[in-house]
Amino acid sequence: MTLYLNLAELLGDRIEQGLYRPGDRLPSVRALSQEHGVSLSTVQQAYRHLEDQGLATPRPKSGYFVPASRQVPALPEISRTAQRPVEVSQWDQVLEQVSSAPDERTIQLGRGRPDISVPTLKPLLRSLSRLSRRQDLSGLTYGSIYGDRSLREQVSRLLLDSGCQIAADEIIITTGCHEALSAAIRAICEPGDIVAVDSPSFHGVMQALKGFGMKALELPTDPLTGISLEALELALEQWPIKAIQLTPTCNNPLGYIMPEANKRALLTLAQRYDVAIIEDDVYGDLAYRYPRPPTIKSFDEDGRVLLCSSFSKTLAPGLRIGWIAPGRYRDRVLHMKYMGTGSTAQLPQMALAEFIAGGHYEPHLRRMRAQYQRSRDLMIEWISRYFPASVKISQPQGSFMIWVELPEGFDSHRLNRELRAHGVQIATGSIFSASGKFRNCLRMNYAAKPTATVEQAVRTVGELAAQLLAEQAG
Amino acid sequence: MTLYLNLAELLGDRIEQGLYRPGDRLPSVRALSQEHGVSLSTVQQAYRHLEDQGLATPRPKSGYFVPASRQVPALPEISRTAQRPVEVSQWDQVLEQVSSAPDERTIQLGRGRPDISVPTLKPLLRSLSRLSRRQDLSGLTYGSIYGDRSLREQVSRLLLDSGCQIAADEIIITTGCHEALSAAIRAICEPGDIVAVDSPSFHGVMQALKGFGMKALELPTDPLTGISLEALELALEQWPIKAIQLTPTCNNPLGYIMPEANKRALLTLAQRYDVAIIEDDVYGDLAYRYPRPPTIKSFDEDGRVLLCSSFSKTLAPGLRIGWIAPGRYRDRVLHMKYMGTGSTAQLPQMALAEFIAGGHYEPHLRRMRAQYQRSRDLMIEWISRYFPASVKISQPQGSFMIWVELPEGFDSHRLNRELRAHGVQIATGSIFSASGKFRNCLRMNYAAKPTATVEQAVRTVGELAAQLLAEQAG
Ligand SMILES: Cc1ncc(COP(=O)(O)O)c(C=O)c1O
Ligand SMILES: Cc1ncc(COP(=O)(O)O)c(C=O)c1O
Repeated sequence: MTLYLNLAELLGDRIEQGLYRPGDRLPSVRALSQEHGVSLSTVQQAYRHLEDQGLATPRPKSGYFVPASRQVPALPEISRTAQRPVEVSQWDQVLEQVSSAPDERTIQLGRGRPDISVPTLKPLLRSLSRLSRRQDLSGLTYGSIYGDRSLREQVSRLLLDSGCQIAADEIIITTGCHEALSAAIRAICEPGDIVAVDSPSFHGVMQALKGFGMKALELPTDPLTGISLEALELALEQWPIKAIQLTPTCNNPLGYIMPEANKRALLTLAQRYDVAIIEDDVYGDLAYRYPRPPTIKSFDEDGRVLLCSSFSKTLAPGLRIGWIAPGRYRDRVLHMKYMGTGSTAQLPQMALAEFIAGGHYEPHLRRMRAQYQRSRDLMIEWISRYFPASVKISQPQGSFMIWVELPEGFDSHRLNRELRAHGVQIATGSIFSASGKFRNCLRMNYAAKPTATVEQAVRTVGELAAQLLAEQAG
Repeated sequence: MTLYLNLAELLGDRIEQGLYRPGDRLPSVRALSQEHGVSLSTVQQAYRHLEDQGLATPRPKSGYFVPASRQVPALPEISRTAQRPVEVSQWDQVLEQVSSAPDERTIQLGRGRPDISVPTLKPLLRSLSRLSRRQDLSGLTYGSIYGDRSLREQVSRLLLDSGCQIAADEIIITTGCHEALSAAIRAICEPGDIVAVDSPSFHGVMQALKGFGMKALELPTDPLTGISLEALELALEQWPIKAIQLTPTCNNPLGYIMPEANKRALLTLAQRYDVAIIEDDVYGDLAYRYPRPPTIKSFDEDGRVLLCSSFSKTLAPGLRIGWIAPGRYRDRVLHMKYMGTGSTAQLPQMALAEFIAGGHYEPHLRRMRAQYQRSRDLMIEWISRYFPASVKISQPQGSFMIWVELPEGFDSHRLNRELRAHGVQIATGSIFSASGKFRNCLRMNYAAKPTATVEQAVRTVGELAAQLLAEQAG
């Protein structure tokens, strides 16, 4: 073990044994360096490690402290869901959400943007810049409908981390995860067909179901373990379900990671009732635990799982590069992809392939995982501090979003409207439901650097929520 | 008028009056310079202008000649079309076509790629390269679902050239023209609905109709003037047609420009029967005549025309940036776009906006129009020379594709298969039909610089076609 890990372990033990107590100032870097005969930078590394584990908190100019113990709000309720397949609504609210461009005057806590202002992305920018000027102009012409060969090979390699052995030939590059999901749905379902979904669930999928005339069956979903398998089995008995669509790893918006046993059990159910699984893994690589959890796809034996993902959350959404490993549905998916957009842009594919092949993907992920985990802790602290005591929140195990539940009857649309005057925006809960549930909920993003401005924005949301609740009661 | 245009006109008149005859050598640059008291470069400019008009041909080291008069092959037949709406087939052949990546060993005469190796595109590459490295990283994040504001403003400005006054707000940026067409179709039609199309017709639209479960009604189409208005009217009487989809300006694959009177008459019919028009203008700016012809959209009064286009043919297809001016169908189109791909990549949008705002679009177009027109003449010459005498060809008025018809019973699939051994590829005619017609036809691209290698490839196609025809007869 390296020096700094030794030291971190020692300090961690002392904290956990209560030698240093919540709120205490920890020994200074200089003091520890002298005490243990190690360099200042080794101590600093040790503190950073403790910070990643949530055992130490830096305060500017005054050193490290043991985080204050605090009351963490309770978990949201298990979603009660519509008892039958419904046609999807809520397009107006989604539209409001996605029509906003990045905007300096508004703190957009509502959108699913990752932090892209980090130095570990620099090599990607350099590749983009250099490839743009390449003599053979290969970035400017139509590529193959399957996508760039070199990128497909890199994606195939990355997939090993989630337990998948999928050859480059079995991967199709898409215009973001959106297109992967949309092509998957259309490849399997006809208008009128029923798709079972987790609930709350990503609005992009909801709107695709709506647009293609399919029905969503929202299943009760546990905020720690995901889709209820009992409810799923009952539903499979009762309805002619064509596909199950879910985001089992670092769920959006609930942030849970479905346990491996549940993933396997879900696959077994899908086999028994012969339905396809559309697995969205767009946040999977951002799980705070390492190694990252396996996908359902990694257990798939007969090609019934269509794995959809992209670089939008791990790297940069503006590139619009995603992929699908469509299993046995490859030909249909390809057809849907062709008629939707033709081939995918070449230049970003080439740059991404270079970035990954150059070994830049893993270090970037490592950094983002640690950053997002720290920010999650801060976000939880802020919500505990600034929101009404009745608030319930999710416990995100990855990615950069938190789900906030307020008491029945609370109106997050009204909240969002009133936040406008304060230059703050959140995602209202009902866009995550086919049938407009979760109006009392909201989703906030903690990807951006946790500055005082962001803290102030969260505070504004909390205080305004309290005010609306009080009005409601009064 | 400038000096060189004066001189060009004078020479052009003499040629047309027969003073210089086909095959004659024209006066030397030096002689004309002395005769008219103008500079050598003015004479050279005049000759280049004549060349663009097809009135003079340069021969290396021996000056300019009047083009030899030659037997130009006849026009293709007016398409006989299926008499009723059909479900679309032919996906296998389209797939074969679009799965090919750019490949140095094959001369791909079949794909719709423009020439991107020209210096007038350099500023676009510079913008891409510079914007990739911009500090604010705005190229890497999600943009608005409508597209980048600055690009929408530039597109709005460009649309003035085709007679359209369309505000930036009425334009949605898409992932290529593919997405524009696909969103337009889904915005208007339900599965089972009938769409009237020109015939032959772009395979992307055919495949979208297939994928969404709609039916195509192929209308007889004149190789010089486009869709037969009589046939359209009869069809509108007889069938519950939802939309008319066509490429009236520089048609793919036939290359005609529908006369303005026909465009107006078609719109009147659409109004009378209350159907939408999906107008594909992806090649419109590449009309050889200047100013370019107006779109049907430019006559639209009640928002029933959905104008679809992109920069794929005028600038660079690999960017995957297109747009749609959806008229009264804006909200539905936006929904379809959202569920298909979410927002469109930012970086290429920003680079394109800079390129157009910087005044680089028009000079580039001017150059491409002239180059493609010259190449068309050469292509016609090569086909006349190398193909069997029974060949019929289109007379492209813009863009960079020619349609070649061989006698009934000729099999272009077999031709394409046998061409593989020669490293040449063409587009088979049947992918341009919903019902597999035009098997005796093929499409060739003349965008690439007309080198000896390209000439040899065309010759190979012609000679192999002759051979297959002979076998067929024997
Ligand atoms: C669960 C989930 N899937 C897919 C997407 C879309 O990803 P992309 O931007 O790659 O299309 C998002 C982003 O909002 C998401 O949250
Ligand atoms: C008539 C027509 N429309 C649309 C397209 C597709 O254009 P884009 O590459 O912008 O999607 C093509 C290209 O093949 C075409 O020929």
